[in-house]
Amino acid sequence: MPERATPETAPRGNTTVYRPTARTVPTRARDRAGYDRELVHGILDEAYVCHLGFVRDGAPIVLPTLYGRVDERLYVHGSTGSRPLRMASGTGTDHSGTEGTEGTDPGLAVCLTVTHVDGLVLARSAFHHSINYRSVVVHGIARQVTDPEERRSALDAIVDHVVPGRSFDSRPANDRELAATAVLRLDLDEVSAKVRTGGPNDEPEDVGLPHWTGVVPVVHGYGAPVPADDLDPSVALPDYLSVL
Amino acid sequence: MPERATPETAPRGNTTVYRPTARTVPTRARDRAGYDRELVHGILDEAYVCHLGFVRDGAPIVLPTLYGRVDERLYVHGSTGSRPLRMASGTGTDHSGTEGTEGTDPGLAVCLTVTHVDGLVLARSAFHHSINYRSVVVHGIARQVTDPEERRSALDAIVDHVVPGRSFDSRPANDRELAATAVLRLDLDEVSAKVRTGGPNDEPEDVGLPHWTGVVPVVHGYGAPVPADDLDPSVALPDYLSVL
Repeated sequence: MPERATPETAPRGNTTVYRPTARTVPTRARDRAGYDRELVHGILDEAYVCHLGFVRDGAPIVLPTLYGRVDERLYVHGSTGSRPLRMASGTGTDHSGTEGTEGTDPGLAVCLTVTHVDGLVLARSAFHHSINYRSVVVHGIARQVTDPEERRSALDAIVDHVVPGRSFDSRPANDRELAATAVLRLDLDEVSAKVRTGGPNDEPEDVGLPHWTGVVPVVHGYGAPVPADDLDPSVALPDYLSVL
Repeated sequence: MPERATPETAPRGNTTVYRPTARTVPTRARDRAGYDRELVHGILDEAYVCHLGFVRDGAPIVLPTLYGRVDERLYVHGSTGSRPLRMASGTGTDHSGTEGTEGTDPGLAVCLTVTHVDGLVLARSAFHHSINYRSVVVHGIARQVTDPEERRSALDAIVDHVVPGRSFDSRPANDRELAATAVLRLDLDEVSAKVRTGGPNDEPEDVGLPHWTGVVPVVHGYGAPVPADDLDPSVALPDYLSVL
């Protein structure tokens, strides 16, 4: 049996679950929420685009961005001139990181959300229409990564999160490129997954209605890779792309 | 030529573009930003899941949710017990809507973001790896919809946004279901699109490197619909599902 946790009793640290907190326990559909690390890692590793939320001038901002995972750390990156990355470094006009500091880095309070849509759930009643999905929501303070080795491994992780194996088959960032790139780290600590699976949950009195009901699977895949115009034709398609 | 707008000169109202504002003009990659209504509507109408950001206790929260569009209004819905919907109605513990009021509804400051991933852009250098994508970011105050007719048409729009034509082929919400459902409206006013297309932008000095380079198209589609176990076999698959 996997270890189960409640907000009151769960230990911190190297457990098989994330400790639920007030903001990771949903107000409704609690049966869809999960805190297993394996479940969370699986959802995170199947995607490469997240939606990163932060607060600027009191208002929410949500931007899509790539991310990578190394164990219990998520990484996002961007131009050193981009707003969230400037804000996390304390050089922006506003920031909302309030919990502690590492040196002079105030951090940036973020919410990082990853969602897979797996199916359209068509019930007989409009009310019971739904989506089969798997999502992960991570709350925390994102901090600038300054250690050169961690920066390099974070950037590799972001590239390899999109195409596993690709970082070994590309020119690593040079000093100028590294200097132009900011990397933020978000520890996986306050985390929850939410999953809906299965068919429609129609009301018993609706079962006789003449509407088609069931699930339309949503399929994600890749088309045939399109070489760049200037690619030397002798460069073969690498194995890691043919198995995508 | 489409009408172009700048923050200084663009008129409000029934123009072909949204007026750029300080927070819809990106700090970088401005050439990827767009404000054309047709472009924005197209990106919004091709998706049905958005990521909705709001602020609670000073921290950002980003949740995936369905949405619908009716002209220049977006709608999201949820249980009347869910946090953002309680917050928008002023019955939650906190809210961040500060701009004006309609009756007693304080509204909820939100950022609604929709993203399509169209391709993986593999450059010869790790630095120039990218994603081809189309995204829309909407800022504004989400407000509870109380008018019964607008609520019904909003719920139809959300169902039809997922599967066009489906709202006509399902039992409409009854009074009990309507009472349990909150609907929020977000006007399309402060809106921008961001689009990246095309191949990798490698540095000239990297062109001779022996790495495969190009674009891997990302494909989205639907599998064969799976009827519910209790579906009467005489109910045929409707046309609007066979053309999905």
